[in-house]
Amino acid sequence: MYHAFNNDVPDVPKSYCLHNFRVAAGLEEGEFGGLVFQDSDLYKYIEAVGFYLANHEDTRTEKNCDAIIDLIAKAQLDDGYVNTYFIINGLDGRWTNLAENHELYCAGHLMEAACAYYAGTGKRVLLEVACRFADCIDATFGPQPGKHKGYPGHQEIEIGLLKLYEITGEKRYRKLAAYFLRTRGQKPYYFDGERARASEESLRHSPQWSSFGEPYAYMQAHRPLPDQDTAVGHAVRACYMYTAAAHLAGIEKDEELLQSMVRLWENITQKRMYVTGGVGSMIYGEAFTLDYDLPNDMMYSETCASIALVMFSMRMLNNTGEARYADVIEQALYNSVLSGQQLDGTRFFYVNPMSVWRKRCLGRADMEAVKPERQGWFNCACCPPNILRTLTGLGQYIYSYSEDTVLVNLYVAGNGVFPLRGGEVRIAQSGSYPWDGDVTLTLGLDRPAEFALHLRIPGWCRNAQATLNGRDLDVAALCRDGFLVLRQLFHDGDTVCLHFPMTVDVVRSHPSLPFNAGKVALRRGPVVYCLEEADNGGELWNVALDTSCPIKAQAEPGLLDGVIALSAQGYRKQGKTGGELYTLDGPPAQEARTLRFIPYYAWCNRTPGDMEVWVTEYEHHK
Amino acid sequence: MYHAFNNDVPDVPKSYCLHNFRVAAGLEEGEFGGLVFQDSDLYKYIEAVGFYLANHEDTRTEKNCDAIIDLIAKAQLDDGYVNTYFIINGLDGRWTNLAENHELYCAGHLMEAACAYYAGTGKRVLLEVACRFADCIDATFGPQPGKHKGYPGHQEIEIGLLKLYEITGEKRYRKLAAYFLRTRGQKPYYFDGERARASEESLRHSPQWSSFGEPYAYMQAHRPLPDQDTAVGHAVRACYMYTAAAHLAGIEKDEELLQSMVRLWENITQKRMYVTGGVGSMIYGEAFTLDYDLPNDMMYSETCASIALVMFSMRMLNNTGEARYADVIEQALYNSVLSGQQLDGTRFFYVNPMSVWRKRCLGRADMEAVKPERQGWFNCACCPPNILRTLTGLGQYIYSYSEDTVLVNLYVAGNGVFPLRGGEVRIAQSGSYPWDGDVTLTLGLDRPAEFALHLRIPGWCRNAQATLNGRDLDVAALCRDGFLVLRQLFHDGDTVCLHFPMTVDVVRSHPSLPFNAGKVALRRGPVVYCLEEADNGGELWNVALDTSCPIKAQAEPGLLDGVIALSAQGYRKQGKTGGELYTLDGPPAQEARTLRFIPYYAWCNRTPGDMEVWVTEYEHHK
Repeated sequence: MYHAFNNDVPDVPKSYCLHNFRVAAGLEEGEFGGLVFQDSDLYKYIEAVGFYLANHEDTRTEKNCDAIIDLIAKAQLDDGYVNTYFIINGLDGRWTNLAENHELYCAGHLMEAACAYYAGTGKRVLLEVACRFADCIDATFGPQPGKHKGYPGHQEIEIGLLKLYEITGEKRYRKLAAYFLRTRGQKPYYFDGERARASEESLRHSPQWSSFGEPYAYMQAHRPLPDQDTAVGHAVRACYMYTAAAHLAGIEKDEELLQSMVRLWENITQKRMYVTGGVGSMIYGEAFTLDYDLPNDMMYSETCASIALVMFSMRMLNNTGEARYADVIEQALYNSVLSGQQLDGTRFFYVNPMSVWRKRCLGRADMEAVKPERQGWFNCACCPPNILRTLTGLGQYIYSYSEDTVLVNLYVAGNGVFPLRGGEVRIAQSGSYPWDGDVTLTLGLDRPAEFALHLRIPGWCRNAQATLNGRDLDVAALCRDGFLVLRQLFHDGDTVCLHFPMTVDVVRSHPSLPFNAGKVALRRGPVVYCLEEADNGGELWNVALDTSCPIKAQAEPGLLDGVIALSAQGYRKQGKTGGELYTLDGPPAQEARTLRFIPYYAWCNRTPGDMEVWVTEYEHHK
Repeated sequence: MYHAFNNDVPDVPKSYCLHNFRVAAGLEEGEFGGLVFQDSDLYKYIEAVGFYLANHEDTRTEKNCDAIIDLIAKAQLDDGYVNTYFIINGLDGRWTNLAENHELYCAGHLMEAACAYYAGTGKRVLLEVACRFADCIDATFGPQPGKHKGYPGHQEIEIGLLKLYEITGEKRYRKLAAYFLRTRGQKPYYFDGERARASEESLRHSPQWSSFGEPYAYMQAHRPLPDQDTAVGHAVRACYMYTAAAHLAGIEKDEELLQSMVRLWENITQKRMYVTGGVGSMIYGEAFTLDYDLPNDMMYSETCASIALVMFSMRMLNNTGEARYADVIEQALYNSVLSGQQLDGTRFFYVNPMSVWRKRCLGRADMEAVKPERQGWFNCACCPPNILRTLTGLGQYIYSYSEDTVLVNLYVAGNGVFPLRGGEVRIAQSGSYPWDGDVTLTLGLDRPAEFALHLRIPGWCRNAQATLNGRDLDVAALCRDGFLVLRQLFHDGDTVCLHFPMTVDVVRSHPSLPFNAGKVALRRGPVVYCLEEADNGGELWNVALDTSCPIKAQAEPGLLDGVIALSAQGYRKQGKTGGELYTLDGPPAQEARTLRFIPYYAWCNRTPGDMEVWVTEYEHHK
């Protein structure tokens, strides 16, 4: 990725990120390259490196990143403003098109990067850059007389400001985030005035404003947040906003706002989310559409949107302690997020489809966004560094803690250290989840300590078992909000063993969802499976799965970096080359076939071809 | 429609057609209204009236139309040019953007209108206008030095010129049509130069030029016609061009061109056509896509495109005498063309979908074109007058004839008169086809005459029977290219009775067509059926048809102006309100239901709701 930012990767669109900062800093001549929000790609990368350096020594990467940060600092103007597009193209344009020019969005990513890099390395340079910019924005925007009354078209700064508030304790940042969130959607609409003032040039990015029913619903500025009850418009904007709003609701104990976020989260997860944790079912506007409208082929499910849903769910988990939020985090991480990246980390999906007829993706002008194979980089490269910061920052999702409680949200082997009130608690987690459901957690304590250990019982799991130091625990009795709760005096070396029986689940969709009628998906633990042409041939719509036969899970260490594959009894309808399009012939003959399913995230790491998550169910009638 | 052209229909988009001509003629002040090709709507209407007046007395309509024609003549410039957009907005723009400005397209419709009005009324005013404009275009375009080397972005003039050639005998018109058709797609591309010269304003209509693989494939100008082997790009442009090319191939006995047209027609009808005769499976570009890519919901199937396919097929029928072309004419006419108009004639579909989930059509920004109910008029109102000219001009499709042959292509009650070499032949056709398959044809002759009577045996029909004056005919033995051929001496009063047994056919799609996998459509005779919410409830994807049970056809005189409805044994999966999106529950319970199918063309003439042509087949396995 560092090479990409240096325009140093062959055969991919150029990033221009470092070039832009060098030009803005006066170190290089040239024009701005890339999209108006190009800076944010670099900020997400720095955030990822910050998370990474918290747990890894890597002098070269750290040195490179320090140099990038110095460059950003050099580009920053005296008043704290930093955005290479406007520094290079003219400062007259600043804050004139908040709807689409992404300045506040880039600022938010700068703040997130600064927080992570400071937390990971203890270095303050970027944090100070971020604070100066936050101060500049705070001096510019707000309810006070004479200040700019706008808010961003692409939400994100609210997330950054709240993180910056938590790191620095500066209440102005929290108040500014609250201002942006609470002013949004009030009438008269800020964007009405902005559009009236804006030049045609500055409006050219805004074709989609009027197409989502209520005005500005595309950017969730159609109503005040507490009055929004369905997830609408651009999915990343939406989920970034919900993330910040959920965070703010927690900080401010705002029960009304929290309940709005519960409602929106339920609307998404019960009516507008793919089984992979993907969201956004429409290419046009990269957007949510309507309840149960989840087409499998011509769809979006942007990697960034799944990541945003993870972020939103994490804030809700922190607010409520309910495991259902962690279930969705896990569902998205193992499926739609992970599918965004090739196994070797070098290529990426922007859109994560559920059904691919490769020829169609390549042949239809309106499916240009639905690539049937991962790409090396993008003109709009928001997704690759977003995956990177999610993977290097996985720790923030695995555990939560307060002064007397540790929540184990996800089962990922590794070590966690938690400074509780009663002393440091260390947790060593081992196992090979999600391939098997045996997880061992061993506590490291300097002295015995009383605290609560919450262990998530995954929503997909039936009959979970647990022992503490070899003694059986009554999981059902100890379960609260989806967590097994152990509140007691713990000793060094105490060991919890969890057993989550891994069965292959046959998943069916709500009957109001047309596209999956008569179809099933397979899931084992949190991992969603798919059929791929490489194993099963193409035209997968002609394949049916016999769900009455047992489905076998088989470890395949040599396959796709090591996966558990599934084999199942199925049928394939006979194909035909040419001939009549419509016939009076009977149904095509079917041949029995063994079907092989692989994890969805790993598809398209061999010969590219057709792929299907939702497979026709071979029906047995009485 | 006359009222629509007068801006005199409430609550619909204004047409401005007559206003534009009045302004162009200097009779009224004002600006041009509507789209750049607005004139063509009026021309199609005049053409329709011309066909209509050939068989009907209607003084008021004729007077109105004569007045319109006088107005057009007044608007015509001295050099013959007539196009209200450029007369009003400035003649500098003429011929500068052939790709999108539709001047030659409008000219073609003027010529078609003139021919029909002359043929129907004997009046020459419009014919002379059309010839003057054709002469102007002929003086402007062509291979000769100093002439403009362009050709239209939207084909149509080629059709008009060939009709004008046939009416007037003027060979220049034929040559100009041939020039346009044969120059098209030659390299270097004409449109490259035009784009380089054109102003940004004049290019603003052209977003879709680059999205169809080869340059200018959107308007079928990517290759010379004989090298085109698949139907690509904008479906109406394509089929209008094929229509003219097929006509030219016939006139010039150009076997290479004819074979290209056979190939393109086969590509369409064997790989790119809906079972209703609809074409164009993509909203974007109103276009053909790729083989077997025929989605049922987000699709196009514009009424005009089906009409264009009828026109193309008619030219091919004339060239070859093969009944398969008439089969497609019939398939389109009774289904996708007729569905374009409400039963009472006042409202219209532009897009004719095969599957409607009403909520989705109304709720998704990218489905704005797929209206779930007919509209009173359109900003782009190409379809309504196109249906009108097709219905009033139906005679041109029912029969063909040459000096010693009459072809009965379609079975429509009425009277035909044919001036054969051996004297006038009159045919009185009666019956209630397509509701039943009994057709009687009685010949009227002034004296016995020898000629050939070709009677189409519909492609959908098995076991056709026929008698001549009560004597059984051996249909199989007498059949040539799908026609029952009777070549003999006929006498006045000779009567042919045809019996086409009407069965309900269960139609299945080619296995390479993903969207109909596991589904069937019902057809009775040429009429395709559908399920509608008004009869069967909504969410029709949860309904399955048991094809092993008999399907009953029942005349319902009180239903939808009188149709034969079908009732069949089916099942409906249980619906659910709210609850989890994905579950491990077994397949939903199914309840037996009697399903009622109505003719597709008649859907949405009651309470608007969901609709489905392709219905899941309830499968019985051994």
